[in-house]
Amino acid sequence: MKKNIFVLVIHGGSGTILKENMTPEKEASYLSTLERSLLTGKKILESGGSAVDAVEAAILVMEDSPLFNAGKGSVFTNDGKNEMDASIMDGKTLNAGAVSGVGKIKNPISAALKVMTNSEHVMLSGEGAEKFAELQGCALVDPSYFYTADRFEQLQMAKQSDEVMLDHSGANKKAHGNFENGGNKLGTVGAVALDIHGNLAAATSTGGMTNKRFGRIGDTPIIGAGTYANNKTCAVSCTGHGEYILRNAVAYDVSALMEYKNLSLRDAAELVVNDKLMKQNGEVGLVAVDANGNYTMAFNTPGMYRGIADSQGELKTEIYT
Amino acid sequence: MKKNIFVLVIHGGSGTILKENMTPEKEASYLSTLERSLLTGKKILESGGSAVDAVEAAILVMEDSPLFNAGKGSVFTNDGKNEMDASIMDGKTLNAGAVSGVGKIKNPISAALKVMTNSEHVMLSGEGAEKFAELQGCALVDPSYFYTADRFEQLQMAKQSDEVMLDHSGANKKAHGNFENGGNKLGTVGAVALDIHGNLAAATSTGGMTNKRFGRIGDTPIIGAGTYANNKTCAVSCTGHGEYILRNAVAYDVSALMEYKNLSLRDAAELVVNDKLMKQNGEVGLVAVDANGNYTMAFNTPGMYRGIADSQGELKTEIYT
Repeated sequence: MKKNIFVLVIHGGSGTILKENMTPEKEASYLSTLERSLLTGKKILESGGSAVDAVEAAILVMEDSPLFNAGKGSVFTNDGKNEMDASIMDGKTLNAGAVSGVGKIKNPISAALKVMTNSEHVMLSGEGAEKFAELQGCALVDPSYFYTADRFEQLQMAKQSDEVMLDHSGANKKAHGNFENGGNKLGTVGAVALDIHGNLAAATSTGGMTNKRFGRIGDTPIIGAGTYANNKTCAVSCTGHGEYILRNAVAYDVSALMEYKNLSLRDAAELVVNDKLMKQNGEVGLVAVDANGNYTMAFNTPGMYRGIADSQGELKTEIYT
Repeated sequence: MKKNIFVLVIHGGSGTILKENMTPEKEASYLSTLERSLLTGKKILESGGSAVDAVEAAILVMEDSPLFNAGKGSVFTNDGKNEMDASIMDGKTLNAGAVSGVGKIKNPISAALKVMTNSEHVMLSGEGAEKFAELQGCALVDPSYFYTADRFEQLQMAKQSDEVMLDHSGANKKAHGNFENGGNKLGTVGAVALDIHGNLAAATSTGGMTNKRFGRIGDTPIIGAGTYANNKTCAVSCTGHGEYILRNAVAYDVSALMEYKNLSLRDAAELVVNDKLMKQNGEVGLVAVDANGNYTMAFNTPGMYRGIADSQGELKTEIYT
């Protein structure tokens, strides 16, 4: 374990993000928001703050931006609501917190942090989680706060393609999200950090899938799937097709490959993302940092909004492969 | 992978289950219900049925019994409701299904199975999950169906001890379940099986924690935590203090130790339950079977309701260490 260095790596979601579908203005605003997120987290880390506080702060910037599918700008469910999930884990204590299916908490990541620090539970859901967050002093907002015209339009498009699919698939229609059709609309956000005290943390926040139904929960609020941190190994935050991440316990798997097979962080992440998940056609991306400050940003999709800042002065944001 | 043999291992929850707190009548009814669960699953396995169908059938018997904390007989939340969770995983396909926070589905395990087989999702929650289950033809019941006088009395006791704890802990009261005081009231149920085709499956179902609040979700509906199955390694179903199981991705960890460290099923389970979790004071139990038909029932509590039936003619039910 190295001390007195810090690393912060973030993502704003992976998916079918193609340069030809992007305007220069939109690209610039994604990159500048990622940079703002990095600088906010970096400020905490360089002044000796904790990895936990840094990942929360980095995510708050992305939750507050309408560009990403988390907090403001979250996608809409089939019912026209926003149901958000978030989780956070402290690699020093293995303590963790998560909220799922919340619609009134301005910053779900802060509520997840309160679950971790101020409750004996790991995961709270729905109205119960909102009640807890309110008691803990988290800001609640009217659900209209999360509305953005872009996301609402995506819902209408998803509903239309849904109907088309129904026409073609007959009566045997499955309950599905519009992942296949809407890969470029994903934008789960996440952050991992190593602080100068040698502690790791990971956090992830999402608005889920456009047009989702039936209270679907993806990988984001699941410790071991979307988020995992352990000072012994690494901190990981995932994005992509949640069902695959869940079934493969992706975040914990990266850690297990390091601990049990002595793989490097990079090799472990590559094996999970570009071998295991690739073979299952599971579209995923992740950011990870280990206890020595090595980091990786692995994804098997055309793009992932991402960035890194560290104590060596590196500051970089990227979108495409 | 062995073929033409089958194994079914079940649990009805671990915890502070002490002989001195048990009447002979109660003991006999626990043992006979466990045996009925085993015989129901065994019938499926010996006629060539799948591990998935066998674990569902075994769990249905325990869900329908008021003795266990799952289905009928589930514990009450602080609001006096029943909020149940269940999950199932198919080791052949790595497909999985789960429901969380459901209050009207007669058999949550069957709804979890429908999520696995008839949706593209892994986890559905709350009213959305109930709507999905109804569309899939799962039986819905009035919430009063789940009521048992014993469980309701436990809630009153838990609420009283809650107040006592509040008196002693001042204003800094945490959101907690009554695990510490109610260990002997736990009774999550689970089953794992190897079928004669060499396929593994695992399933778990629970009513959660007495007096739980804020929509708390434990490990039971979490793939990788409470439930995991993979033909390459093993099938695992956990019970105990859910927060510890979640943070340690216990079910997947047993599999990872087998796959990555070549540990035997028994050694992997022992390492997780009696070393890793013990060091964290995490009270847990699990049942597991591997692809060769080896099985284990590991727990670090005074007791675990459990049983095993196999193609060799073994049929055994036990409660204490």
